[in-house]
Parts: sequence; structure tokens; C-alpha cells
Amino acid sequence: MYDTMNMITNTILGMTSGASITSVLSTASVNETMSVVQDYGADIANSLLVSNNVWMMVATFLVFIMHLGFAGVEAGFGQAKNTVNILFKNTLTPIIGILTYALAGFFLMYPGFDVPGWLSFDSAGWSMFWGSPGDADVTVGYADGGYTYWTDFLFQAMFAATAATIVSGAVAERIKLSSYLIFTVIFVGIVYPIIGSWKWGGGALDDMGFYDFAGSTLVHSVGGWGALAGIIILGPRLGKYVDGKVVDKPGSSVPLAVIGVFLLWLGWFGFNGGSVLSADPGLTSFVLVTTCLAAAAGGLGGFIAAYFMFKRLDLGMVLNGILAGLVGITAGADVINPSMAIVVGLIAGILVVISAVTLDKFKLDDVVGAVSVHLTCGIWGTLAVGIFSADHSFVSQLIGVAVCGAMAFVSAFIIFYVMKMISGIRVSEQHEKEGLDSHEHGIRGYTIIYE
Amino acid sequence: MYDTMNMITNTILGMTSGASITSVLSTASVNETMSVVQDYGADIANSLLVSNNVWMMVATFLVFIMHLGFAGVEAGFGQAKNTVNILFKNTLTPIIGILTYALAGFFLMYPGFDVPGWLSFDSAGWSMFWGSPGDADVTVGYADGGYTYWTDFLFQAMFAATAATIVSGAVAERIKLSSYLIFTVIFVGIVYPIIGSWKWGGGALDDMGFYDFAGSTLVHSVGGWGALAGIIILGPRLGKYVDGKVVDKPGSSVPLAVIGVFLLWLGWFGFNGGSVLSADPGLTSFVLVTTCLAAAAGGLGGFIAAYFMFKRLDLGMVLNGILAGLVGITAGADVINPSMAIVVGLIAGILVVISAVTLDKFKLDDVVGAVSVHLTCGIWGTLAVGIFSADHSFVSQLIGVAVCGAMAFVSAFIIFYVMKMISGIRVSEQHEKEGLDSHEHGIRGYTIIYE
Amino acid sequence: MYDTMNMITNTILGMTSGASITSVLSTASVNETMSVVQDYGADIANSLLVSNNVWMMVATFLVFIMHLGFAGVEAGFGQAKNTVNILFKNTLTPIIGILTYALAGFFLMYPGFDVPGWLSFDSAGWSMFWGSPGDADVTVGYADGGYTYWTDFLFQAMFAATAATIVSGAVAERIKLSSYLIFTVIFVGIVYPIIGSWKWGGGALDDMGFYDFAGSTLVHSVGGWGALAGIIILGPRLGKYVDGKVVDKPGSSVPLAVIGVFLLWLGWFGFNGGSVLSADPGLTSFVLVTTCLAAAAGGLGGFIAAYFMFKRLDLGMVLNGILAGLVGITAGADVINPSMAIVVGLIAGILVVISAVTLDKFKLDDVVGAVSVHLTCGIWGTLAVGIFSADHSFVSQLIGVAVCGAMAFVSAFIIFYVMKMISGIRVSEQHEKEGLDSHEHGIRGYTIIYE
Repeated sequence: MYDTMNMITNTILGMTSGASITSVLSTASVNETMSVVQDYGADIANSLLVSNNVWMMVATFLVFIMHLGFAGVEAGFGQAKNTVNILFKNTLTPIIGILTYALAGFFLMYPGFDVPGWLSFDSAGWSMFWGSPGDADVTVGYADGGYTYWTDFLFQAMFAATAATIVSGAVAERIKLSSYLIFTVIFVGIVYPIIGSWKWGGGALDDMGFYDFAGSTLVHSVGGWGALAGIIILGPRLGKYVDGKVVDKPGSSVPLAVIGVFLLWLGWFGFNGGSVLSADPGLTSFVLVTTCLAAAAGGLGGFIAAYFMFKRLDLGMVLNGILAGLVGITAGADVINPSMAIVVGLIAGILVVISAVTLDKFKLDDVVGAVSVHLTCGIWGTLAVGIFSADHSFVSQLIGVAVCGAMAFVSAFIIFYVMKMISGIRVSEQHEKEGLDSHEHGIRGYTIIYE
Repeated sequence: MYDTMNMITNTILGMTSGASITSVLSTASVNETMSVVQDYGADIANSLLVSNNVWMMVATFLVFIMHLGFAGVEAGFGQAKNTVNILFKNTLTPIIGILTYALAGFFLMYPGFDVPGWLSFDSAGWSMFWGSPGDADVTVGYADGGYTYWTDFLFQAMFAATAATIVSGAVAERIKLSSYLIFTVIFVGIVYPIIGSWKWGGGALDDMGFYDFAGSTLVHSVGGWGALAGIIILGPRLGKYVDGKVVDKPGSSVPLAVIGVFLLWLGWFGFNGGSVLSADPGLTSFVLVTTCLAAAAGGLGGFIAAYFMFKRLDLGMVLNGILAGLVGITAGADVINPSMAIVVGLIAGILVVISAVTLDKFKLDDVVGAVSVHLTCGIWGTLAVGIFSADHSFVSQLIGVAVCGAMAFVSAFIIFYVMKMISGIRVSEQHEKEGLDSHEHGIRGYTIIYE
Repeated sequence: MYDTMNMITNTILGMTSGASITSVLSTASVNETMSVVQDYGADIANSLLVSNNVWMMVATFLVFIMHLGFAGVEAGFGQAKNTVNILFKNTLTPIIGILTYALAGFFLMYPGFDVPGWLSFDSAGWSMFWGSPGDADVTVGYADGGYTYWTDFLFQAMFAATAATIVSGAVAERIKLSSYLIFTVIFVGIVYPIIGSWKWGGGALDDMGFYDFAGSTLVHSVGGWGALAGIIILGPRLGKYVDGKVVDKPGSSVPLAVIGVFLLWLGWFGFNGGSVLSADPGLTSFVLVTTCLAAAAGGLGGFIAAYFMFKRLDLGMVLNGILAGLVGITAGADVINPSMAIVVGLIAGILVVISAVTLDKFKLDDVVGAVSVHLTCGIWGTLAVGIFSADHSFVSQLIGVAVCGAMAFVSAFIIFYVMKMISGIRVSEQHEKEGLDSHEHGIRGYTIIYE
């Protein structure tokens, strides 16, 4: 750039040295001028791509750390005798999620529908990904300069694994590890990306006007439906419902759950902020504000609802209220204004408490409240877009919720059911009672003894 | 941008096709040229805004995660029987902080003083915030293109909640939760923003030449004075001072405290780095270096001071030394050079140990050492600007410290005192002895049992 | 920028008002035009510097948080009776690392060799750093606009402390704290930067064609060799190898180890992504993808290898497998394509299990498996560049591994050996048995008791 700058400087300065302008602005010098101007245009576009891409990489990191957040919540709320098992699942989930998304999911989810569609596969993209990396488009020509091809893949891969992680929290403490891992491969590798393609891949729901900014439905309620299918087929933990009463199973570490929720809140800034798909300054920062206000309002809602229902300062419900507010705002974080974001979050925080109580009435045993957080509030958030945003139709939202829900629930139900028929998906009664850690993993989660 | 590029290309290339320049550079083509050049100017400014705003969003995330840092330090250093109670307070603090800052604090803190002043409210800003989000200025016209309106709000909201969090650590293990929550609403919603407005809102202290880059005084010592008022009115924990001796109350988890301190150190990069209010490359990165050197030197200072005073490798003092160094450099991170940053940090690390011992002599029971870290070293850091920076006056710094200190301490004292008179602010002796968790929350922080 | 914009606007518009172009384009107006164009060039370059620098600051934060990651892994895998001691070392390591790097390391590592060399010191840089900060080059002229001087220092300082941290994990639970601290000062302050200078400082290995993108050898195997020297000289923990059997010593907290590994994975995005030394969008995001795929594949490799070797779902080996994959891809993250990145990671994950078993056969007691992760896989990753990248020679890689290994191992061996001769480097048998925390630190890591 500097060399061409000097060139044009000399050319223009030459114009002032007494020669007539007509002669100075020769074809050659005009071409030089042009090349400088053209460089500037490309340089500005590149500079913007760099900024956008930095933002999207940061968002990717934040969504990645949500996996540690889920691990914290689940191990914190789960019983100490199953801590290692829970952590094993939560560690394997992003591993499997990222690898299966590279092998199939990414290309199922963004297949490049020519017509509004339900299923397609981007085989050209697949070949490119696994071929020479030099073929990938990392220029401003990709995605309007919002990010590069590789950032696109990684950001979406982090999202994908989230759907399976949601399931792991609900089915914890009694599912066979092998069953969970097989479920994850199929759910992340195939079910989630196909559903996602219907909206984010430009498929049929997108064509219909369904709106889901960052995935209240496409990620959270899809995961929540999977969780619901899982706990229906698995049945409750032994001794959870005795003589019509719900027996409390204390989690191993409340601090660990708090770490988890704060990391999820942090990660959600990337989850929603990154879903702008560029660093557009007004939109990204607006999304962060609605996201944060809804989270705070959700925590407050959970606090208040639990206080009136249980007469207790219930930290678990504050924490789940925060997550509920975050799930609730996710579908409309870019189109719901700050005051309504607080309303969406507050209602989500109240809903999560009601939902948890209701599930227990039906003896649906959800270890961490994943169904209440992700399914109940995912539905609420998606419908809220139809209520609080004038640009979106409630009916379209309802159809989207129903169609995605049907596909997610039925798929998950079939996967779990078939596995149950073939080999069983539940650990033995002895293992469940004594804890999965000592049997399957040979170590304990905590060994805090002083000789 | 590319379309206009093509236009100008054709225009200029047209110039070389033999026509005389005078005729080619018609009014129309000159206007086209102008529009391209104008686009470039705007595009460059926008690209810079995008970068700046990305940085400020990252800084916002880092300050957010400081709330998890505080939670870790306080739950780690607090006794296991009160873990849930501590975490409850630390989770509610950002929730309340963000909501009250949106409802009042932001508009009290940046009221747009026309004359040097002490109290004002930006009612136009309030209406805009709660009205249509489309009205917010998210262009380069806002804040010199350093960030957008929404980033501004969120970054400052994260700051605001910090002042209350500082208090929570000192008053832990015996304050009523309701008292703490009411205090937080008033302190974050009203007291902190009014004090902040005197300097950062362009008020009277700013006019006087007082300098406080990122808030050694405006955030940390304000919080520290609140903490001091709290522990004076509350009195020490039962059994803390017995027969003239200080009784050690072991914290539940040293690893949790270490997680907290590292997260605070990390968050401080955003706290100080974001206080540049743009991504100015030289200044932001310089601020990170002074911040980091002071933190390291503070940890070393705490290590050495504790070793000589207690003949012990005192991890708690290393950790508080790190925080002390960070608080100390906060007022002058942009104007103190690297060698002096080490001196500021080292002295802060030594001061924090001396301060902790001194408070204990006066039977002022501070569970995590919040007064020593944030008040003592907040004062030291603010004065250090007057010592180590030639551009700032020691006297102005001293006046700022005194004025803010008087306002913060008196306000906090009155809030706590009035609550004490009305309903009491301390839990019952039985609850304190048996732990707040089992009584107020119905669960324990840790349930690490194996059947 | 806007003022000059208006000037040029008026100038050009003036051209169309009827005057002849020759007269309008006077020397003055041409100069004004020039200044606008020149401003644009500089503004674009500055905007790019801002973006690049934001990225590198983010990368710096990520590498910083790796120190918390190491603390988590080591305290999690170490026994509860030594938790405080381990955390003390891990907290002091970045403190010492940053300070010694400022005092010496940075200037040894980037000395500006005029000829291919082995040892030099940038004394001019040293004077500048400790003199007036105004002298530092924070313009686009520094490092091709990839970042500023201060970011450069801080990013490299965070790297430097990593090498010592690796050692701390291996030698834990029986080394004297003073011995470890002295070792750290010398290793981070002198040995690591000298070895680094051979490649990254433009020294003799760089001239020879050795390639190590982000430090599989220069950071990880250097640390790993130090760890190996340490455990050879120290000998195994008491009761680790009894009657030819390996006795398991359960770590205090598996959740803490998981937190550590996830933070390390997160941090590695900055470790490798930042090693691009700018935010080049294609290259940075590509590096993140190879890094992440190798991590996932490494975890899978550790899982599979441990399952076949131990018939156990071994979470420890999954976690170390992730780290192994990350270490393995570090040398070639920018030149190895995604499919080969998975191969590199998978092999690293398998190697780490084999290596751990092998070390135990030789009674080399490595508390957290640091030698297997960082040395074994650091060598593998460096050689993998010679295998999977056509542009690099296997022989050059082998020479680099050997030369750096010899220097690191011999230096570390000498440091530990001399300390052992002078004062001993191992704690007393009584302290080791009863735990280092109660003796050296006077507190316990966990105090989870309910009265």
C-alpha cells in the first residue's frame, strides 16, 4: 500500500510542477491512480472482514466455554457418586459433536437449498472441507465479509454439540454411557442439522416466515425434546418418587453449579451475539443488552416464583431462572426491545419453576431441570417473537415450534426406544444405587480425605 | 461499495480515452467521484467503529466474569456452612445491579452536566432507552466512534454491580439476605452512579482535575467504604475474636478462591483495558501491561509481606496481593510507566497484609479482606497517580479520595443503620452458628458423601 | 478525517463551478487532495492495526487463562493433602514468569540476531521498556501492523510462564517450594527464552529451516524435558511404586481437573490462534479449526486407547488425550489440513496413554502426566510437521527436536542437580506423608465440615 501511495503522491505532485494537467494525467498515471483507489476499496473491505472475523472467533470461544458451563451445572446438581460419569459425558459431548459435525452435520445443515426444502447435503462443501484447505473461501466474498469459511464451520460446530449436551443433564445418573454416546452421534450428526437446515439452511420453515434468531427452538427446544424423550423412556431414578412424594437428591457441589451458570451466561453473549453473523456494531451490542436483561430478569423471576411457591430462598431456581431467561430471549434477541426483553426473561424465570413442579407431578425425573429450561422456555421464547415483534407472525412461530418439536421428539424417541429394545439403555439397579463412578470409571469425583 | 467502485473506475478510465480532461470531468462525474471518496471516508470510520466496539464488547464480557470471580473468592474463603448463602448473594448482585442500572443508575451517572455539578438525571436518555431501540445512536457519531450506545450501557452496568459485590465479601456469614439485597439496590442504583457522575459524568471532581482512570476510587474504594460501614454496624462474626485472639475460620475451598482470583485478574484486563473506551492500540495494550505487572508485583508483595510477618507461605495473602496490585494500578494504568506499575503493585501487596492485620486489631471482621483490598489499595492507587504521574496533582487526588470516601461511607452507614433500626440486619445467633444454608436455603453447599 | 473530507469536497465541487480545471487544481488544492488521500491510506492501515491488536489482546487473555487451567488440572489430579501447595506453585508461576520475562526473557528471546545465532540480548529494547513508555513503537510500523509493542511483550510473557507450569505438574507433592521457585526464575527467565530465540528470535534453527508454529517443541517439549529432569532427580512419591505395582493416588477433585482441561482447550485457541501474530482472517480461523479437531481427536484417542488397555472408561485419559491432541497440533496448526489434524490428534491421544504406562514402568512418577502430554506429544507434533506438510523437512524437524531437547534437559538437570547438592530439593518424609499443606501453608485445601 505504501509503495503505491508514493507513486500516486509523486504523480499528483508532478501535476503542480508547471506541466498542463492534460499532459500530466496521462493514461499511465491515471492507471496508477486507479490502482491506489482500487486498493483502498479492497483494503477497507478486508479490514472490516478482519474485525468481523475476530468477533465471530470470540463468539465461537464463548459458545465453546458453554460446554464447560453445562458440565459444571450437571456435575454440580448431580449426586457425588455419579460425578465422574456426568463429566465423562460432558467431555465426550463436544468431542463427538465437533467430529460428527465435520463429518456430516455442517453439510446437512447448510446444504444450499435451491428450492424451499427439507433435506439436502452439500457434497461439494464436504469434498472441499476434507480436501486441500487452500480451496476454502476465506475472502470478503464469503458470507458478505461477516466471517471466513473456517470460522463459520467452527462457530456452527460449537452450536451443534449444545443440543446433545442439553439431553445429558436430564438423563444423568441412570443412562448407560454407551447409549448416550450413540444417541449423541446420531442427534448431533443428523437430527439437529436437518432441523436446523429448515430455517438456517434456507429450507421450508425459513420460506414460511418462521423466525428463530439464535435458536430458542432450533437448538434449545430441539435439545429439550430430546431430553423429554430420554426421561420418558428411561423412567425416574430409583427412589426419586416415593409414596407420592418427591425425594430430594442433593447435588455434589453448589459452587460448581454456580460456575456453570455464570459460564453459560457468559457463553450466551457469544451464542446470541455471534448469531448476528458479523460484528455489525449496532446489532451485536443491542443483542447483548437484550440477552443480558432477559438473563437478569429470568433470575429474578425464578427467585420470586420459588419464594412464593416454596417459601425458600432457592438458589437452584435463581440459577435455572437465569438460564430460562437466556433461552427465552434467544429467538428474538435482535427484534425485541429492552423493556420487553425484561418481560420475556421474567416470564421465563417464572415458567421454569412451574414447569419443574409440573414435570415432577408426572414423575418425569429431570436431574438438572433441562426440559424446563430448554424446552418450556424455548417454546415460550419462540412464541414471544410472535407476540412482541410486529414483524413476525404468531402463527408462523407456532408452526415452527410444532414442526421442529415433532421431528426432534419423534427422532429422539425412536433412537432411545430402539436402543432400549436392542440392549437396554439403563444401568443396573446395583450400579445406580452404588453410583456409576466406582463401577464404570473406577474413580471417585472427590477424594477429600486427610490422613 | 463495489458498485460505486466500478462507477468511478469507468469514469476515470473514460478520462483516458482521448477526450479532453475538462470535458470528462463534468459535474456528473465529479459528483460520482465525490460519492466514492465520501463512501471511503465513512467506510473507514465504520470499520474502526466495528473494531472498537468488538474490543469494548470483549471488555464487557471480562468485567461480567469478574462477578463469577468475586463469587469464587467469597465462597472459597467463606465457611462451608454458609456457601449457598454467599453464592445466593453473589448471583443476585449482578442481577440487581444490571436491572437497577438500567432503571436509574446509567442516567444518574452520565447525566450530561452543563456546568460542573453534583447531581443530575438524563431523562431524555431514559426515555430513549425504554422506548424504541431504533432511537439509540449506534453510529460513529456516538462517543467518537469508540463504541455504540448499547455497548456503553452494558459495559458500565457491569462496572456498577462491582461496587456492591465488594461489600458482599466483607459482610458475609452474618448479614440478613434481605438487608443485603436492599442495600445493593440503593447502593448500585443511586449512590455509586452519583459518585461516578462527579468524575466520569463530567461533574465537579472532573472539573477540579481529579484523575481516576478506571476506578481505584470511584469503584473500588466506594465499594470498600460500603464494606467498612457494613462490618462496623454488623460487628464481627460470633467467635471471631476471643480473649484478644483472632480465631481462624477456614474457608470451604481454596481451589475455588484461586479460580476466583484468576478470573478477577482476567476480568481486570477488561476493567482497565475497556476503560480506554476504544481499542486505541497503543493505549489499550499499554494499560494491559501496567495492569498485569502490578498484579504480579502485588502477588509478590503479599507473598513477601506475609512471609516476614507470619513466617508462613500464605496463599491467601498472595491471592489478596494480586487483587491489591490490580486495585492499586486501576487509577493510573494509563499514565504510570511499567517500572512504576511494579512499584505501585508491590506496595499494594504489602499494604494489603498490613491493613488486614490492622483491621483485626480493631475487631473489624472482614471475611475475605475486601476492605484491605479495595479500600486501602484503592486509596493508595489513587494517590499513586499524584506521585508517579507528572500530569496529575497529589492534592487533587487527595480531595477526590476524601470527597468520594465521605459520600460513600456516610451513605452506606446510613443505609445499614436505618435498616438495623427498623428490622435488624443480622441473622439470629442460632442461624449464624448452625450456618445460613440449612436455615435460609434448605440445602448445603457441598454434599460429597458416598453410600 | 471529517474536516479534511469537507475540504476536499469543497475543492472538487469548486472544480465544477465553471472555472477551468487547470486553474482550479492549484498547488494548494492538490496538496489538500493529497492530504486526504494520504489520511485514507494511514486510516486504513490504522484500522487494520486496531483489529489485529484486538485479536492479539484476546489471544493474550486466552493464554493467561491457561495458567488457571494448569492450576485446575494439577490441583484436581493432586491429592487433597497437597492442594494448597500445588495452587501456591501455580499462582506464583505466572507472577514469576511475567516479572522475569520483563526483566530478561523478552530481550533474550527477541534479540534481533544480525547473523544466525545462538545467544544475544536486546539491550536497546531493555532500556526502552524500562524507560519512558512513550518510546515504544505502537504504530503500524511495528511488526507489520500485526500488533503493538506492548501486546507483543504481554502475549510472549504469557507463553513464557507456560514452560515452567508444565514442570510444576510433574514434580508436585514432594518438591520443596523454594526449589521450584528458583527453578522457575532460571527456566523462564533464561533457558526458555534462549531456546526460543533460536527459532522465533531468528536464530540458528530458524535459519536451518526448522518449523514450530506455536511451540510443540519450543514451549511444550521444553517444559516436558524440564519435567522429566525434575522427576528423575526427585524420585517417585513415597508409596507410589510398591512391590512392582503402581499404587493409585486419587486426585482431590475430578471436576476441578475437568475445569482445568476445558480452560486449557479454550486457552489453546489463543495460544495457536495468536501465534499467527495478526488477525489474518483466513489463517487464524483455519488454525482454530485444526486446533479444535486435533483436540477432539486426541480426546477420542485417549478414550479408545485407555479402553483397550485398561478396560475402563478412563476420564483422566480422555482429558490428557485432549491436551495431547492440542500439544500435537501446535507445531503445525497452520500447515496441516483438517483431515491430517485429526490424524495427528488421534495418534497423540493414543501416544499419551502408552507414554504414561511406559513412564510408570521406569518408576518415573509424574503426578499429572505432564511428560507424556507435553514432551511425548510435543516431539510427535513437531515431527508430524515433517510428515504431513510438504513444505517442511523431517530431518530439520528432528534436528530441532534434538537440539532444543538437549539444551532444555541438560539445563533443567543441572539446575535441579545443583540445588539438590546444595540444599536438597525434596521435602521431608514426614511432610510428604502428612501433606505439604498443613506443614508449609498452615491451611487445608478443603474444609467441608458441617457442625
